[in-house]
Amino acid sequence: MSRVIRFHRTGGPEVLQIDEVEVPAPGPNEVQIRVKALGINRAEVMYRTGQYVIEPNFPAMLGYEAAGTVSAVGSDVVGFAPGDVVSVVPAFSFAEYGLYGELVNAPAHAVVKHPEALSFVEAAATWMKFVTAYGALIELGGLQAGEAVLIRAASSSVGLAAIQIANMVGAIPVALTRTSDKREALLQAGAAAVIATQEQDMVAEVMAITGGQGARMAFDPVGGPEVALVLKALSKHGIFFQYGALDTRDIPVSVMDLLGKHLTLRGYQLFEITEDQEKLERAKHFINEGLAGGQLRPVIDRTFSFDEMAEAHRYMESNAQVGKIVVAL
Amino acid sequence: MSRVIRFHRTGGPEVLQIDEVEVPAPGPNEVQIRVKALGINRAEVMYRTGQYVIEPNFPAMLGYEAAGTVSAVGSDVVGFAPGDVVSVVPAFSFAEYGLYGELVNAPAHAVVKHPEALSFVEAAATWMKFVTAYGALIELGGLQAGEAVLIRAASSSVGLAAIQIANMVGAIPVALTRTSDKREALLQAGAAAVIATQEQDMVAEVMAITGGQGARMAFDPVGGPEVALVLKALSKHGIFFQYGALDTRDIPVSVMDLLGKHLTLRGYQLFEITEDQEKLERAKHFINEGLAGGQLRPVIDRTFSFDEMAEAHRYMESNAQVGKIVVAL
Repeated sequence: MSRVIRFHRTGGPEVLQIDEVEVPAPGPNEVQIRVKALGINRAEVMYRTGQYVIEPNFPAMLGYEAAGTVSAVGSDVVGFAPGDVVSVVPAFSFAEYGLYGELVNAPAHAVVKHPEALSFVEAAATWMKFVTAYGALIELGGLQAGEAVLIRAASSSVGLAAIQIANMVGAIPVALTRTSDKREALLQAGAAAVIATQEQDMVAEVMAITGGQGARMAFDPVGGPEVALVLKALSKHGIFFQYGALDTRDIPVSVMDLLGKHLTLRGYQLFEITEDQEKLERAKHFINEGLAGGQLRPVIDRTFSFDEMAEAHRYMESNAQVGKIVVAL
Repeated sequence: MSRVIRFHRTGGPEVLQIDEVEVPAPGPNEVQIRVKALGINRAEVMYRTGQYVIEPNFPAMLGYEAAGTVSAVGSDVVGFAPGDVVSVVPAFSFAEYGLYGELVNAPAHAVVKHPEALSFVEAAATWMKFVTAYGALIELGGLQAGEAVLIRAASSSVGLAAIQIANMVGAIPVALTRTSDKREALLQAGAAAVIATQEQDMVAEVMAITGGQGARMAFDPVGGPEVALVLKALSKHGIFFQYGALDTRDIPVSVMDLLGKHLTLRGYQLFEITEDQEKLERAKHFINEGLAGGQLRPVIDRTFSFDEMAEAHRYMESNAQVGKIVVAL
């Protein structure tokens, strides 16, 4: 028997409950993991409240991000053995797998050996955010050394990951944030420059930083009318990635910006990388290299125990965190 | 001495005048051409009136599209010899070269041997439109057999070229046109389907044609608010190319379309292909193959004589043509 966290109806954090279940032996392409840490993310909160892209079937398992040790492997699995230290990339749907448990099965293609120096807590805080930022900046955008990337909502978990990845390839991460409250924190997090968009002339600042060329890339989870200004701050052949929709209003695109600079606007989601085996392998390789070399460092805000999962969800809903919320087992 | 057409001040068609000039021997990387036909295009009209992206230095040469025979080659030119039948791709600026002349020099990288079956008039009507459509559909967009492409302003010269190129690779060209006036002409020009956007529910029609998937690509010289509907008619991972700005109003982009379908919006211009030697070579190869195989056929509206150049410009300004206006020498 294993203790797992499930919900039997949608609702507040209190619907999360610990159930005793019999975990089946891993299927041919599955790895069974003794979980040591779980990264918490907003998709799980939305799934619990019934606002996610997938409808839950009750009782519903959940959980995208785990780290632990291998306890058993399926018959067709190669490269993993019991005792291996591993973590899990969110490369599956909650309709298939959920990792909130002491003992869980995960699809082998989503399991990765992470560098030894990483703790379980750090490993559980790694994959979602670094793969999201890597996919746009490197896999699709091909960010190069010396190029500037504008990072909107830069103090978010993914924004901080994008700063680290930009620095890893020698690019210039420019953090966009509403006010100067977080300026020092963002500079310490690795931003080459911080622009407070409500206090400064953003386009003029970007042009000053880039010698009048504009930035080669922007990476934005917000959207909305302010994107028009971000596009004006891009260089010729610039690329704008939209990876979230915190502002659901239309983006007004100036055709003279689009045409005159040969701009690209691209809607992007993590699953474009994790559902493609070749892209996923490249992502794992890049991120493992960055973790091993110390250029990528997961930022942890706070840890909770397994029995405090409802507290962890409540804390995420407060939006008080800077960095990852992790449950340690 | 050679007769060339130049203008000494901006203005109406009447400013175009025939001047007798001494044409210098071709430079090391130039080919000298005895011109037999000239394709006329809107950029030349705009340049003559002072509305183009380049300011003229008087007396100003002009002309992007020519076909003729080689009369001399520069010292570093390989692959061309006097007597060769050639045409010219618009891969230069009017600040450097203008082809309105009986004898002209052109940069060797822009000169191409076209299939023998092509007349001089057809060759002069080939490169601008086919390279423009090829660049978006094939080089940047990677259009595949079986995929639908929405072609806005489909009866334009470039629109007709896009229909032929889509058919050449086995894709499904869907012509978008305001009213059903041009329906039969567009079907005869090769459109798999024609949608009259002011008379039909465009999105519903596209979904019916594509089995509910939406089109993989759109190719649009117009822009403006109607693009929002075109985006709704695209498939997952769809690409929208904007290659003109006939409507200068902003494009309102729904973030849920952009994000939910991982759409790409791309501003595109011909010069992205012609200024890149590798892309230009691929374009020449593809188009020559299509011309030789008969899948690509330049559509000529009307021809004028060299002395009637002002008439030719006046006719272009009337917008009465369907297909290319050519001056034959």
